[in-house]
Amino acid sequence: MTRRRRKFWGWGYEDEGPNFEQQERIGQLLAVRLGIDAPRPQAPPQLHEIALRAPRIAPPAALAGCCSTDAFDRAGHTYGKSFRDVVRAFRRDFANPPDIVAFPPDEQTVVALLDWCSTVGAAAIPYGGGSSVVGGVEAPSAGLARGVVSIDLGRLDRVLEIDTVSRAARIQGGMLGPALEAALKPHGLTLRHFPQSFEFSSLGGWIATRSGGHYATLYTHIDDFVEALRVVTPTGIVESRRLPGSGAGPSPDRLFIGSEGILGIVTEAWMRLQHRPTMRASAAIAFSDFTTGAAAVHALSQSGLYPSNCRLLDPGEAFTSGAGSGSEAVLVLGFESADHALDPWMERAVECCRDHGGRVPEGATRTRRDDAAAREGAAGAWRHAFLNAPYVRDAVVGLGLLSETFETAITWDRFAEFHAALSARAIDVVRRVCGAGTVTCRFTHVYPDGPAPYYTVLAASAPDRQLEQWAEIKAAVSETLLALGATITHHHAVGRDHRPWYDRQRPDAFAAALAAAKATLDPKGILNPGVLIDPRSASRRERKERSPTAYPSDTPRAPRRRRSRMDRASQPEATCAAVP
Amino acid sequence: MTRRRRKFWGWGYEDEGPNFEQQERIGQLLAVRLGIDAPRPQAPPQLHEIALRAPRIAPPAALAGCCSTDAFDRAGHTYGKSFRDVVRAFRRDFANPPDIVAFPPDEQTVVALLDWCSTVGAAAIPYGGGSSVVGGVEAPSAGLARGVVSIDLGRLDRVLEIDTVSRAARIQGGMLGPALEAALKPHGLTLRHFPQSFEFSSLGGWIATRSGGHYATLYTHIDDFVEALRVVTPTGIVESRRLPGSGAGPSPDRLFIGSEGILGIVTEAWMRLQHRPTMRASAAIAFSDFTTGAAAVHALSQSGLYPSNCRLLDPGEAFTSGAGSGSEAVLVLGFESADHALDPWMERAVECCRDHGGRVPEGATRTRRDDAAAREGAAGAWRHAFLNAPYVRDAVVGLGLLSETFETAITWDRFAEFHAALSARAIDVVRRVCGAGTVTCRFTHVYPDGPAPYYTVLAASAPDRQLEQWAEIKAAVSETLLALGATITHHHAVGRDHRPWYDRQRPDAFAAALAAAKATLDPKGILNPGVLIDPRSASRRERKERSPTAYPSDTPRAPRRRRSRMDRASQPEATCAAVP
Repeated sequence: MTRRRRKFWGWGYEDEGPNFEQQERIGQLLAVRLGIDAPRPQAPPQLHEIALRAPRIAPPAALAGCCSTDAFDRAGHTYGKSFRDVVRAFRRDFANPPDIVAFPPDEQTVVALLDWCSTVGAAAIPYGGGSSVVGGVEAPSAGLARGVVSIDLGRLDRVLEIDTVSRAARIQGGMLGPALEAALKPHGLTLRHFPQSFEFSSLGGWIATRSGGHYATLYTHIDDFVEALRVVTPTGIVESRRLPGSGAGPSPDRLFIGSEGILGIVTEAWMRLQHRPTMRASAAIAFSDFTTGAAAVHALSQSGLYPSNCRLLDPGEAFTSGAGSGSEAVLVLGFESADHALDPWMERAVECCRDHGGRVPEGATRTRRDDAAAREGAAGAWRHAFLNAPYVRDAVVGLGLLSETFETAITWDRFAEFHAALSARAIDVVRRVCGAGTVTCRFTHVYPDGPAPYYTVLAASAPDRQLEQWAEIKAAVSETLLALGATITHHHAVGRDHRPWYDRQRPDAFAAALAAAKATLDPKGILNPGVLIDPRSASRRERKERSPTAYPSDTPRAPRRRRSRMDRASQPEATCAAVP
Repeated sequence: MTRRRRKFWGWGYEDEGPNFEQQERIGQLLAVRLGIDAPRPQAPPQLHEIALRAPRIAPPAALAGCCSTDAFDRAGHTYGKSFRDVVRAFRRDFANPPDIVAFPPDEQTVVALLDWCSTVGAAAIPYGGGSSVVGGVEAPSAGLARGVVSIDLGRLDRVLEIDTVSRAARIQGGMLGPALEAALKPHGLTLRHFPQSFEFSSLGGWIATRSGGHYATLYTHIDDFVEALRVVTPTGIVESRRLPGSGAGPSPDRLFIGSEGILGIVTEAWMRLQHRPTMRASAAIAFSDFTTGAAAVHALSQSGLYPSNCRLLDPGEAFTSGAGSGSEAVLVLGFESADHALDPWMERAVECCRDHGGRVPEGATRTRRDDAAAREGAAGAWRHAFLNAPYVRDAVVGLGLLSETFETAITWDRFAEFHAALSARAIDVVRRVCGAGTVTCRFTHVYPDGPAPYYTVLAASAPDRQLEQWAEIKAAVSETLLALGATITHHHAVGRDHRPWYDRQRPDAFAAALAAAKATLDPKGILNPGVLIDPRSASRRERKERSPTAYPSDTPRAPRRRRSRMDRASQPEATCAAVP
């Protein structure tokens, strides 16, 4: 029995994704939409076309058994899954692969791997499902590292313990979404965390990147599902206590949640679960335009109704996903429960939408209570709408077009102005750079104090300039959203790609504190160098006192220097007179 | 017009609290309950009875205007409001007062004060409402500090900006609960955060201690209400961005939330608000015993109904608060909304309680929609039940009795066993140490994965041994709850009093990371030394390399040394063979 292999160059399994004819058809459809000649699908890379640098390091004998220098493994761990990653793969550019891909079978081997990397000064790149879209799993630039070890946690793939009373489970960090849900299902439980990358992303990766999940309100962020963590750092194992709530100092878990592999590797976590929903009410509500729909979502977000789905699609997104005609915005609204029928919730939500100009189909408020509800809940809807999206994106890249997304969050008071300005800027730069293109928007999450808008760019592209064109668009929209007070990322993480803007977003003093924490947990600076913080600037005092960190930053710098957040008020002259 | 003064030795205003006759009556009631002779009220301390050490430092001229060495100010800032604090005050023991009490009128002066303290090596103790019950606002032991400055943020007491669209406000850190709510009320908004200390605790204090709030489920923790922070540290000002959600690295806010004044002083925060509830449904549901009620609460906590109030009182607590006869447990259940009638929510919750043996009064499910709902919601109920509790507690101390609380959180799977073991241990030690006493319990918060039980101890006491008796009880119950996997604090913070157990609860590596962050933000170690972490152990490497920290720890050590959480798995020998 051979195991299904994943593509080394893009999303998913080798035997999935559109075939050549389907790719041609996609090209024809997009050509019509963009008003260009139909592009031809390019052949994806073959492994024999890839020339990989010889490994620069070799593992000690005790670790050799779990370490691979196989070309398939090394090529497959060279990139994440961003547009930029797939374009580089199509260009047969695998210039900076990891030297070694390690597949530790247990936590003890993770400890040993970090020890080895610390000893030899090799970079250790934690690798979960490999779905990073921000350069979070690639090697630091060639020439800067003595060696690079990609640590694939895929063998830490089990649910170790289930507590059905508290609804929680102890789960290994390398477990991917589908296996995790399959293991919980017999117990009537679900983690109910469905990022778009669900099929090929891991629990540890979700935790390390503050994954957003699929649901619109309330419990959707991985942050809130973490009950306790177990993290291997180069200086020891950190384990927090299983607690439903605690006010004992700053949360240890929150230091590691979102740390993107620079502080340690999540080997286990106790995760809060939910009962699998058995009841569901849903409706697709039409609005004349996105702004009108946003006003309804604004009201819903502050109603205390907490819909599980509250995904507002602009006319373009509604058309693309088959939810609308392209002339109106559509709100995909849903409630789910394992406890109670949802008619009162949906009735009030529908009333609220009607008050804001929404057109609601008849019968929208009735709760469905059957097996189909469990199968076809918001999770089911998500599967249909989104599961194939990354496959299609890869095909679009293969057609030589440009297809990428960016996402953010902003408070309601600034949203309308922000969305208008950012959309205008985005479409302007897309057309200028690419000639033809579209920018569409949906809300992926909504909070009482603001939405998380998610933008999709589709554009014509000069096949040999795809990277440069996207870089120009990305820089323009990132500068705009940062200037308008939004965040450079809502749930895609920072990685290496977002560093130029993240560096200006986060408070400098926080970065200094984080760097000091890293220097304590990872004194050799081996873990994911270049991600989140610049090891060089960890702390000037510390650098002078310790051995130099292994990796100077290779992060591209934005032209503008970081804005200072270290205000220093003018101070009265301080003197001291000791009195007896 | 003279401003109402607060007691320098206990809770609240000088002109409030039970008078002598009322204290006598309380003594008689408690004597019956404890089966002892009625104790006589002792006279509370008078300022002229207190001998304060002469101030050891004097502020520079530029800061003199906001600095006080007045005996009333210094005595009033010597302690928080724990049983231990009030007992020491009754003993006229003010041996270790702050040398200076500073009342900075603005943030710039806070910066200058920290600069001055850094320069002269004085300890800076952030002081909000002064309601700490864990030794969080007192000076480090005499002899260890060159000087101690209590920084009272009481003049930073304004709402600076209100965003009614996003429902958020920018609020200064020193603002106390009642003023804050009064400022928001005209806008139809509320922070809806009502800890028992509400009347005399501040926004900055709530943030610094991860305050729990009054509500039982969902949005109640101050952690979730923080949209952005502004924190003055000795090395500069940290300001985070106003965002409804963000996945950009570990949350900067979460590092400061719960940091108990050791990293900086919260001068401003953007806080998420809610519309003031206008509709309410509530019921008091009786259960044969606490365990039966807990089963109902367990089901409710996982139902997705999210009651605003879900406070289970054991028979003793129900009797004390007037909610029950003393023979049965009572669940105080409530729903509130500014958007919708709550009958469906309450109907389902009541059904759930009946399924678990609850006896529900007729008409419990009807929503009240009137002005009274706003006035008499859960907040109103709380006011009646709890506002006077701290005044009564002080009176009990004055009667020479013992009255104190402790609280924790634990997952549902362990709750029954935990509660039985802890209650047995508590009542055993109380009776052994004090002869007569009661230990009662209520749930203050419930989560889908577990409750937060809150225990109240009332006992006879030898008037001259109150401190020692409580110390023995506290150590016994703390050891037990730590051994049983609970947390040393759910919402009372760590301060200095909980250090011996917190030190064994939090992962060592996290403490090392936190100490490194502190060393970066507060290189002289002036901020609240002895709270949360031991500046001495900040990092052995760092200490050797930097100037010695100003304050060795003066925290009492538990006899048992901290349990190691720095597991170090045995490792295969790591060697490296570089290959070309």
